[in-house]
Amino acid sequence: MAYKQKPAIVLCEGAFGTNLGKTANGLVFYSNKYKIVGVVDSVHAGKDAGEVLDGRKRNIPVYKNIEDAISNSSVKPKFMIIGVASIGGKLPTTFRPFVEDALRYRLNIVSGLHEYLGDDKKFKALAKKYNVKILDIRKQPPLHKLHQFRNLCKDLDVIRLVVLGTDSSIGKRTTAISIAERLNEYNIKTIFIATGQTGLLQGAKYGVPLDAIQGDYMVGELEHTIVNAYRIEKPKIIVVEGQGSISHPAYVCGSRAILTATQPHGIILQHSPMRKYRNFGKQDLKLPMPEISREIKMLELFSNSKVIAITINHEGMNLLQIEEVINEYESRYKVPVSDILVHGPDKIVEHIKKLYISKSI
Amino acid sequence: MAYKQKPAIVLCEGAFGTNLGKTANGLVFYSNKYKIVGVVDSVHAGKDAGEVLDGRKRNIPVYKNIEDAISNSSVKPKFMIIGVASIGGKLPTTFRPFVEDALRYRLNIVSGLHEYLGDDKKFKALAKKYNVKILDIRKQPPLHKLHQFRNLCKDLDVIRLVVLGTDSSIGKRTTAISIAERLNEYNIKTIFIATGQTGLLQGAKYGVPLDAIQGDYMVGELEHTIVNAYRIEKPKIIVVEGQGSISHPAYVCGSRAILTATQPHGIILQHSPMRKYRNFGKQDLKLPMPEISREIKMLELFSNSKVIAITINHEGMNLLQIEEVINEYESRYKVPVSDILVHGPDKIVEHIKKLYISKSI
Repeated sequence: MAYKQKPAIVLCEGAFGTNLGKTANGLVFYSNKYKIVGVVDSVHAGKDAGEVLDGRKRNIPVYKNIEDAISNSSVKPKFMIIGVASIGGKLPTTFRPFVEDALRYRLNIVSGLHEYLGDDKKFKALAKKYNVKILDIRKQPPLHKLHQFRNLCKDLDVIRLVVLGTDSSIGKRTTAISIAERLNEYNIKTIFIATGQTGLLQGAKYGVPLDAIQGDYMVGELEHTIVNAYRIEKPKIIVVEGQGSISHPAYVCGSRAILTATQPHGIILQHSPMRKYRNFGKQDLKLPMPEISREIKMLELFSNSKVIAITINHEGMNLLQIEEVINEYESRYKVPVSDILVHGPDKIVEHIKKLYISKSI
Repeated sequence: MAYKQKPAIVLCEGAFGTNLGKTANGLVFYSNKYKIVGVVDSVHAGKDAGEVLDGRKRNIPVYKNIEDAISNSSVKPKFMIIGVASIGGKLPTTFRPFVEDALRYRLNIVSGLHEYLGDDKKFKALAKKYNVKILDIRKQPPLHKLHQFRNLCKDLDVIRLVVLGTDSSIGKRTTAISIAERLNEYNIKTIFIATGQTGLLQGAKYGVPLDAIQGDYMVGELEHTIVNAYRIEKPKIIVVEGQGSISHPAYVCGSRAILTATQPHGIILQHSPMRKYRNFGKQDLKLPMPEISREIKMLELFSNSKVIAITINHEGMNLLQIEEVINEYESRYKVPVSDILVHGPDKIVEHIKKLYISKSI
């Protein structure tokens, strides 16, 4: 029997296309494990989900509620994925009636929230009644299954790259996947390692829900995943998805854990030139975005590695501004700079080939 | 009824006086909540626990097993505290029969391990049979009770100091408590904030088991604790205990979370000049200790604060070597340097008074 994607809708009420809805956005852009047949968000109901995101039609309708989605989907969904990466990982209260409805329509629920929906009494009872499952994917494995840091990656015969960012929800995962896919198209075997819920929900073959793991085991669990991917796949390159930002005051572990576990040959830094304040909760804290130069200093000091390229998130920019920023950053930081959504990953991929592969080809 | 310390023995089989036994060591040095009436470690049985640690008698006998402790303690213990801070927080298997014996002797068990002893079937059954409790203190509060970062400390009218270190198990807590106590003796009201299991077990009035909290909430929980301590106590100074080291490859969250939550006016850096390898597991990884200058660079870059003093852990050093190191570091790093266990905290305390208090007295 051939591998078959599971048909799923994504719940993103009131948040599709925003930073909060990054899991839904990511699944519309790219989904391996699930076939996304619809998004539920009454704000954008009637539109095409792809068009909401970047103007490109993807034949994924946005529905106003669960009933609408069930009645009008061309393929009957079997799963509903919670499509928000909410701060603190709690289920928005406005989502509760949608989840209850989905259970009544016999959809299995898939959630990457810190709040475990399977532990919710009402949801649990409904799931039992309608004979469906609630899958909480962002759970820490039991203590006896966790791995500790063993300093293993430095000895692996594979080029290890990380895509880090100056903020959370800034496009690190999309950049990492795009680069990994293009390298594979060039027959340079590359494995993408997911470190967050969206990448895991998208169906990354290797990954770890890093922010669900307690601090003492974070580095070890990621290291174990990388070593495992290396042993099974024997790739030439491994690209690890970043989390948060090394200077982000609220997300203090992710970038450090990723650098230490990966011991990367090079760092790709994703930045949004127009973003003024860090992505954090209701934005009322108005935490200013970091300066790129300070971010690079921190990353290089911690990793003993180098930022080899900068990639741009063009939110709030027109094409002219994008070109200007690319020229400005290239002359200032002396590394290739690219907007991957506009220009594709080739500029960065060529640079990676030149730095790490050309000698061996 | 006056406040009464609870009589307790500390289980530290095979590890008393070592880095692994730091919880037991700490409780022998200083204990507020529990009155320590004995240590169980067959290796040092018959000696005085204080003498094992630093040659100073403290009238706390070391016993060979639980029966020995129960039969010979001058005060009957009601609690047994697990005295190891094991890597990964698991109960050493050699400890199991001791814990079972303690339950049979009707001792309540207090544990700061990540492995929850109260969830262990055998222990649970014994605790029920003998009508005693198992208290796992290093548990994360439920999700709905956790606090997120709110950037609050910067506005508090209190001098905030942190004692960080170049490694784990290096004396940060002892230094922090010593400084806080001396400041209080000078009528400069100072509150110590614990961030680890030992400080909490010692009975710190304010604290948070930082490494049991998931990453997204670490900074917020500590910040909440600091704000709470400030509001209730209205101190002039708050001293926050450090965790791990900012450059430690396995403990990636602690120091960062503490710096971000505290937003300190100054950093005191604890270092062990003779330690060659980082304290981590069985030491077989042989991770070299960091250079002080690189550690200071990292701390200052991340905190936008300054290292204002260096304190020495004199393991493996004689008095002459201590003096030499103090002189060398003072001329190299241009800050006061002191061995607090040898010379007491006055040199550092005077410096703190000069920097932060003198103007206001």
